[in-house]
Amino acid sequence: MIKKKGRQTVEFTDPVYILSHAAIGGKKEGEGPLKDDFDMIVSDDKMGQKTWELAESSFLRTAVEHAIKSAKLTTADIDYVLAGDLQNQCAATHYAIRDFPIPYFGLYGACSTMCESLSLGSVLISSGAANRVLCATSSHYCSAEKQYRSPLEYGGQRAPAAQWTVTGSGAVILSTEHAKCKITHITTGRIVDKGITDSANMGAAMAPAAMDTILAHFNDTGRTPDYYDLIVTGDLGRVGTDILCDLMLREKTDINSRHRDCGLLVYDRMRQDVHSGGSGCGCIASVFSGYLIKAIENGKYNRILLTATGALMNPLTVSEGESIPVIAHAVAIERSEI
Amino acid sequence: MIKKKGRQTVEFTDPVYILSHAAIGGKKEGEGPLKDDFDMIVSDDKMGQKTWELAESSFLRTAVEHAIKSAKLTTADIDYVLAGDLQNQCAATHYAIRDFPIPYFGLYGACSTMCESLSLGSVLISSGAANRVLCATSSHYCSAEKQYRSPLEYGGQRAPAAQWTVTGSGAVILSTEHAKCKITHITTGRIVDKGITDSANMGAAMAPAAMDTILAHFNDTGRTPDYYDLIVTGDLGRVGTDILCDLMLREKTDINSRHRDCGLLVYDRMRQDVHSGGSGCGCIASVFSGYLIKAIENGKYNRILLTATGALMNPLTVSEGESIPVIAHAVAIERSEI
Repeated sequence: MIKKKGRQTVEFTDPVYILSHAAIGGKKEGEGPLKDDFDMIVSDDKMGQKTWELAESSFLRTAVEHAIKSAKLTTADIDYVLAGDLQNQCAATHYAIRDFPIPYFGLYGACSTMCESLSLGSVLISSGAANRVLCATSSHYCSAEKQYRSPLEYGGQRAPAAQWTVTGSGAVILSTEHAKCKITHITTGRIVDKGITDSANMGAAMAPAAMDTILAHFNDTGRTPDYYDLIVTGDLGRVGTDILCDLMLREKTDINSRHRDCGLLVYDRMRQDVHSGGSGCGCIASVFSGYLIKAIENGKYNRILLTATGALMNPLTVSEGESIPVIAHAVAIERSEI
Repeated sequence: MIKKKGRQTVEFTDPVYILSHAAIGGKKEGEGPLKDDFDMIVSDDKMGQKTWELAESSFLRTAVEHAIKSAKLTTADIDYVLAGDLQNQCAATHYAIRDFPIPYFGLYGACSTMCESLSLGSVLISSGAANRVLCATSSHYCSAEKQYRSPLEYGGQRAPAAQWTVTGSGAVILSTEHAKCKITHITTGRIVDKGITDSANMGAAMAPAAMDTILAHFNDTGRTPDYYDLIVTGDLGRVGTDILCDLMLREKTDINSRHRDCGLLVYDRMRQDVHSGGSGCGCIASVFSGYLIKAIENGKYNRILLTATGALMNPLTVSEGESIPVIAHAVAIERSEI
């Protein structure tokens, strides 16, 4: 059953379980601190494809196949796919998912898409509309640079506050069937725009939206930060993380010791030259579908609040002088004793 | 309650009602056959904004405001907004919805987005996660031409099979509260790609996906075309409509007499120089939120199967030689005796 809690949260009184998960990363991700938590590291970031766009589709397709296979299911067992990515018109997802004859809902929440898919997927499961829902997102450094900034061949300098788009994909299958990891609540974000216009400083644009949703989660549920082992964001990077923790302190809510950011977990900033940290739909997706779920399954953590932030501008709106609207969606995940 | 019916359909045993609706159109839409069914016609397609992109946001914002106002509600009464558009990264929607402090799920289904939002919105209502959900989409001829084809100033010739993007927006509020129009079933599409590569002939690309979903609806529910007064698509245009009716006949399912296409309803093709007909997220959204819902409410029609089709490519993938993946989502709508 689903119970409304306050303005932005719903609780699943029968929890939604994470039946299987898959995290696929590229070469750079395979050289980072989480390299052993990916299910597959691909040394060829082009995945044998002729374009970066199709390469990203291959990452997503591989993650989806892996999640289905590791649950010992077939495509016929999946009721819905909920997915999206950063390419214009979410093309990476469409060219991947056309290979799976599964009812499909396309989502766009920029880097918040993974938590959006987990949220709507949980509602589909909990409502009885579906028995199994596959949630997935992807990103690719080369397709993102080409589309959002400039072609790699141009060799443009990166700003210190800029983040490095993760090449990778994560996929999970949600189900009513008991598993070690469960979703208990979702808190859905509102669009927040604090007037930031610098698209090389997404952390600054996104931190206020993360705060808005995390505070809403605490207000709606009556919980405090110490309920969770980790409060995870994806992906604020170094700049955004500092801003978020500072903003939360001003609201008398200290999350410093519990906060982790997927953009800081996935790379070694000092060694891997990623400036403010990782980003992209594939960052939180692969860190969650790999490292975080495994850490819950093996008992390292019991309760995580996963908050994905998405910057909702496009290059045209920014060049036309508009500021950056942002959204953040949170999902409460717990270890389940089965 | 929600009941699964077959592979792609769910039934709402407690129907979801359409509490209010708003259709906003531009100058050309106000000169078409449905001019009296729009709630507002705006003679300035730029809506007083400095860019076409922001103008599209204004259309969407106006539709959302109108739908909320005509239900005598405020933003605080709406639990979720589900919306999307055709601009890169769905920017028209984000710059409109940032003005409404309502939890938001962003969708991308190209021109299928309105039925996608009605589908997921109905699940949110029926599951108890929400009491009221606002579903909306928009499109704008000038922002779409600029992004997908060429700037208007270029004066490029249009192909005979090309469609004309509707400048407009539609919004509805779904609710558990009884109203004259209700949603009883949704049938969610799978991605279909028959290898069409000509993005000036979307009708040909989209017709097979429409057929796939309409046939799935009949298979899953045991219904035949004569159950419905109208089987509506949006937007196949003249070319796609002929292909769909032909393909359906080959499957021994005659929908000829009952079929209508929003792209053919919204303009007078002969008089308004729109080639194959209208298209865009705002086409089915405004035709449904205006003409069709009113026709159900006033008893002209009792049962409509609304099927929105979306072409899921982007200009880059087409220029790289890829074919056009397409999806279609169907929603069964009935007159409710209240």
